Amino acid sequence: MFNKISIIGCGLIGSSILRAVEEKKLASKISAYDKSTSVTNYLKNNFSVEICKNLSDVVKDSDLIIIASPLSSYKEILLSIQSNLKENVILTDTGSAKKEVNKIIGNLSFKSVNWIASHPIAGTEYSGPEAGFSSLFKNRWCIISADEKASSDKIKDLENFWNKLGSKTKLMTFEDHDYVLSLTSHLPHAVAYSIVKTAINNENKFKDDVIQYSAGGLRDFTRIAASDPLMWKDIFIDNSENILKVLDNYAKNLNEIKDAIKNKDSKKLLEIFSSTKKVRKEIIEAGQDTDKPGFGRK
Amino acid sequence: MFNKISIIGCGLIGSSILRAVEEKKLASKISAYDKSTSVTNYLKNNFSVEICKNLSDVVKDSDLIIIASPLSSYKEILLSIQSNLKENVILTDTGSAKKEVNKIIGNLSFKSVNWIASHPIAGTEYSGPEAGFSSLFKNRWCIISADEKASSDKIKDLENFWNKLGSKTKLMTFEDHDYVLSLTSHLPHAVAYSIVKTAINNENKFKDDVIQYSAGGLRDFTRIAASDPLMWKDIFIDNSENILKVLDNYAKNLNEIKDAIKNKDSKKLLEIFSSTKKVRKEIIEAGQDTDKPGFGRK
Repeated sequence: MFNKISIIGCGLIGSSILRAVEEKKLASKISAYDKSTSVTNYLKNNFSVEICKNLSDVVKDSDLIIIASPLSSYKEILLSIQSNLKENVILTDTGSAKKEVNKIIGNLSFKSVNWIASHPIAGTEYSGPEAGFSSLFKNRWCIISADEKASSDKIKDLENFWNKLGSKTKLMTFEDHDYVLSLTSHLPHAVAYSIVKTAINNENKFKDDVIQYSAGGLRDFTRIAASDPLMWKDIFIDNSENILKVLDNYAKNLNEIKDAIKNKDSKKLLEIFSSTKKVRKEIIEAGQDTDKPGFGRK
Repeated sequence: MFNKISIIGCGLIGSSILRAVEEKKLASKISAYDKSTSVTNYLKNNFSVEICKNLSDVVKDSDLIIIASPLSSYKEILLSIQSNLKENVILTDTGSAKKEVNKIIGNLSFKSVNWIASHPIAGTEYSGPEAGFSSLFKNRWCIISADEKASSDKIKDLENFWNKLGSKTKLMTFEDHDYVLSLTSHLPHAVAYSIVKTAINNENKFKDDVIQYSAGGLRDFTRIAASDPLMWKDIFIDNSENILKVLDNYAKNLNEIKDAIKNKDSKKLLEIFSSTKKVRKEIIEAGQDTDKPGFGRK
């Protein structure tokens, strides 16, 4: 499908792409770069890919470059690879925020480069190449945001690539992507971190109890709050504008519940709790979760 | 084990107890009451239990009475059954808040009644008798809070009962129960309702997107926010004091994140996100969740 694919950053996401590309034979050659020696050693022992010690080498003659490293590393990566890019290359990434990255790339004024961002809505709470698996993207969405200078053929090529990995693709502007994700992913993470912090910042007397009886709700938040801190720190900074806006709306909704509790307002509480029940049904109908009961799970 | 067990309220929890008691033959006779005709019809068609049309009949000659109905129904139930209680009966429940109920029972000044509250930390986001299953309590915790007048033999009997249903039991005061659960269960629910409300109260343009791309975090909250509204309204009112207190602590932690985002304070964000990561490990070690990656699930 591609002659050469280069993967920059081989943690959970990058190594999962690497596995899927190898398994499905989507490239004749694969090159990889990671700044961590333990990661490159892992790659050497487990994959037959070209491992490059410096960034400009990894992208040489590549038709598809995938940046799968934390957002804060992009600038340095882009500066290092810019002089070695093949004409008409597809440059993509896997980041969870797009607007700031798009600005950086705009300022670099690449020529003959198709910058088409990808965001696979897939992952686990684990990080590192050992945590990757080739079916990570199967039946998941991948949101594609294309720069206006990207050719429509190359956009199709990248969509096909994600389809081959098992994902459904959806085109979205950089701005819409960042707003929608601030609601569906970034706000839930901010909230999960706060709630887990509230539960653990407790008198020692109750510390063990909080862990033991976490199945009543807290447990689910701890999984989200165990995501990679470095990756999430970058997302919150890059998408700060949207996140602060939705956090304000969220605070209003939380205060509404708080006031209803204070006033022991049964009618209001019932109204709030009933309104959120039907969304669950819509998510199941959209194939984004199963209807299998989750709370009772072992 | 018991000669006669009576179950008042046969929704998800009550019907699951009924199934388990039948399956494990924990009583010679079982009687059941539910105020809903559709529930009692379901029971008639699926179980061989004595179904009573009025509350005072259901508890007659019973050795163990289990109230598994919403907290706001307890007072009426207790007033209806009080004159028909067998001497030395065990009176228990399955409610998620204890202090208020305990006050109601204290005011009734029962004689020769062993009031020993139960809280099985088990459930799903579904309600009604069709949603019940006999293994719901297997490997889950059940918190027991005993009135000072309850005999230690009867406490042991009730603990044995939950053990037979597959649960581990833990004794806790009514007050400690309500505080610990406000952290591990009630706060997570308040937050989940608020976050789902924030995500759905959106411009129509993004409504479908929010549903489609919910796998990045929101999905998990919608399951919690789909829990029974009536049951949760009662919990928030009964345990309002603790919930308001932990909501205040939570708001402080959320503001800390908000300020760090505003100031683009990488160091602070990294510190917060790292602190919550290790709780996940403790919960897995305590057997309260698996280490199977969850985010990538289908």
